[in-house]
Amino acid sequence: MNIVKGGVATPRGFLASGVKAGIKKSGRLDLALLYSEVPAVAAAAFTTNRFQASPVKVSKAHLIEKQHRAIIVNSGNANCANGRIGDRDALKMAEFIGKALLLDNKEVLVASTGIIGVYLPMEKIEKAIPALAGELSETKGACFAEAIMTTDTVKKELAVKVKLGKATATIGGACKGVGMIYPDMKTQMHATMLCFIATDAAITKKMLSVSLDEAIGDSFNMISVDGDMSTNDSCFIMANGLAKNREIDVKGSDYRKFTETLKFVTIELAKQLARDGEGATKFIEISVTGARSELGAKAIARKISTSNLLKCAVCGEDPNWGRIVAAAGSSGVSFDPDKVDVYLGSLKALSNGMSVKGLDKEKAHKLFAKRDVYIKVDLKSGLHKATAWTCDFSKEYVAINSKYST
Amino acid sequence: MNIVKGGVATPRGFLASGVKAGIKKSGRLDLALLYSEVPAVAAAAFTTNRFQASPVKVSKAHLIEKQHRAIIVNSGNANCANGRIGDRDALKMAEFIGKALLLDNKEVLVASTGIIGVYLPMEKIEKAIPALAGELSETKGACFAEAIMTTDTVKKELAVKVKLGKATATIGGACKGVGMIYPDMKTQMHATMLCFIATDAAITKKMLSVSLDEAIGDSFNMISVDGDMSTNDSCFIMANGLAKNREIDVKGSDYRKFTETLKFVTIELAKQLARDGEGATKFIEISVTGARSELGAKAIARKISTSNLLKCAVCGEDPNWGRIVAAAGSSGVSFDPDKVDVYLGSLKALSNGMSVKGLDKEKAHKLFAKRDVYIKVDLKSGLHKATAWTCDFSKEYVAINSKYST
Repeated sequence: MNIVKGGVATPRGFLASGVKAGIKKSGRLDLALLYSEVPAVAAAAFTTNRFQASPVKVSKAHLIEKQHRAIIVNSGNANCANGRIGDRDALKMAEFIGKALLLDNKEVLVASTGIIGVYLPMEKIEKAIPALAGELSETKGACFAEAIMTTDTVKKELAVKVKLGKATATIGGACKGVGMIYPDMKTQMHATMLCFIATDAAITKKMLSVSLDEAIGDSFNMISVDGDMSTNDSCFIMANGLAKNREIDVKGSDYRKFTETLKFVTIELAKQLARDGEGATKFIEISVTGARSELGAKAIARKISTSNLLKCAVCGEDPNWGRIVAAAGSSGVSFDPDKVDVYLGSLKALSNGMSVKGLDKEKAHKLFAKRDVYIKVDLKSGLHKATAWTCDFSKEYVAINSKYST
Repeated sequence: MNIVKGGVATPRGFLASGVKAGIKKSGRLDLALLYSEVPAVAAAAFTTNRFQASPVKVSKAHLIEKQHRAIIVNSGNANCANGRIGDRDALKMAEFIGKALLLDNKEVLVASTGIIGVYLPMEKIEKAIPALAGELSETKGACFAEAIMTTDTVKKELAVKVKLGKATATIGGACKGVGMIYPDMKTQMHATMLCFIATDAAITKKMLSVSLDEAIGDSFNMISVDGDMSTNDSCFIMANGLAKNREIDVKGSDYRKFTETLKFVTIELAKQLARDGEGATKFIEISVTGARSELGAKAIARKISTSNLLKCAVCGEDPNWGRIVAAAGSSGVSFDPDKVDVYLGSLKALSNGMSVKGLDKEKAHKLFAKRDVYIKVDLKSGLHKATAWTCDFSKEYVAINSKYST
């Protein structure tokens, strides 16, 4: 497995584009398209929010088909809470691409991100379709990654190559989302984070879905910016087989290599999201070890990652580690508090449930003053572990989110 | 039922005091005592956090006794994550009072609030005991309410009189806690909010516990400041019978009157906490109606109350109601999104799951610009309802919590 320059259009047979349709007031790129030159199998994971955006509903319905060719994405408007009109508009987006690229509408998947409760400007979108389709290119992955951004400050993309038998497959991805980030996605189900992954690996639709679920569980579903779950979270993957590896159809060694690579891609993209979280000045990694179950380890790591108090402390470079303890204890997971150790970087602050006497406060402060802050909670009760990622909570987060719609 | 001037020392036979022991760096009042001149029955609800502060453990153990006389409380230090030393120190606090007031140690309950993971300055506490016991007075309820404060900007107290048969009983309370506020307490179980209630009503220990549980479920357990659950949350009630009403020992009409009054007291105190939330500039009330179950209504109202995004929007007076929708949908409660109405004050923003066309944005803005913001979500699927309370999320919250321990 090795990282290569590129993104969603790097795998063979994938083209991408991004144009300005005028949905965003800022006038930036806001309409994106990913296209496979040959039929591809697709899988996706969606938000489990009860309010599902219209593009989520349409994509779910279209995913029943065996093969797909394209994904159209707009930023600046979530097309959520728009009822039947929203559903019709999401469907129209698929139809526009179907018509422009001579595809069946159901071969087209749809995603949206932006404000909730505002109707899509369909005329603007329709007008931008010729340029969107016309500019499709294997060199426009970066335009795609830019066009899906909302409050993101940098575009997020990655491409990785992996050997599958004698063939070499590429997995490329782009993602966005730095606010309303607390995904809990399952395939055919839950984040507004959006992620689009393309691969030229040959793999069955079923195994692609299984692999995506495995990857998401340890990546996107382990990040938080603000603990708010979106109505639009979606992670799509298309696999077009052009790498000519022996098709992956069972959980064999090629499946494992593919899934480990996919997991690497999704973890790296997820960390990019956390690092660019709204108003973030720091990146925080929380490891939980010694848990009785993986589910327990994940629940504790996630609970700590959503502690506003801890995130404010990291922002202020104040090593107030008691907030880690309080968050861990409120996860609903059972453990023995008298066994627990807590580390700030390499510095032990809590030992067997007791605060370490003579803790080096200056050293603790220095560890919290770094750009990347590492926290470890060792429950010493089992063999399971998990890692979650988040960012600090700054005044800038409040500034960004107190004037979003007006 | 009528509100009277006063607080925790207003019911007959209760005395209170508050002194400066030097636990707080600020030099403010930080040690408080509540005392009943005659034996009282007591009940309490504690945090369900797995990490329980030492005073919570000691109070739980002492509550097994039939009668109690006093509660000692310190602010400025949570005495949590201090292991055996913390347990010993909490017990010593009870012993100090036992010795000073000639009580059995087990008749004394203990509470602490402040920073986690710092050992209590026991010498300072011991030195302050004579003044604390000496100043006990029926006029010092306000000192008690002040001495339990941490980042609170105002003290919170209330007293209410209620007729029980021919007798008139008084319920008085004091509480604190404006950060790390997301209580989920049950009697003999979960908030650092602290609440102390005294009443001269005659009621059995068992019925007192049942009544407290009912009251807490609709009051303290429905508030949030930051979604962080404390290791120290505690709500205590002592009833000394001096009102001479016929002892409440079953769920009859007197029980109902007593419980309704207690619920009123706890709701009013809970709202005072939300209103004084760290950095708060606004108070937010969230009502959920038309739910299939009370539990469902509560879960949705609470989920909305913890949305950082909504709370930032309220801070910025930006009526970004889509965030209400997203939060409601992520509660895990099942409902039909196509039936849901959302109101900002009296203004309908969402109707049957669809954003209202031509929403009066200026009016919406004005409703969010008020000091008190009212949000209603009508699920139109059942007869159950619930109300939750919170405050907005301001830059000041971040400022307060980024430099707490240093």
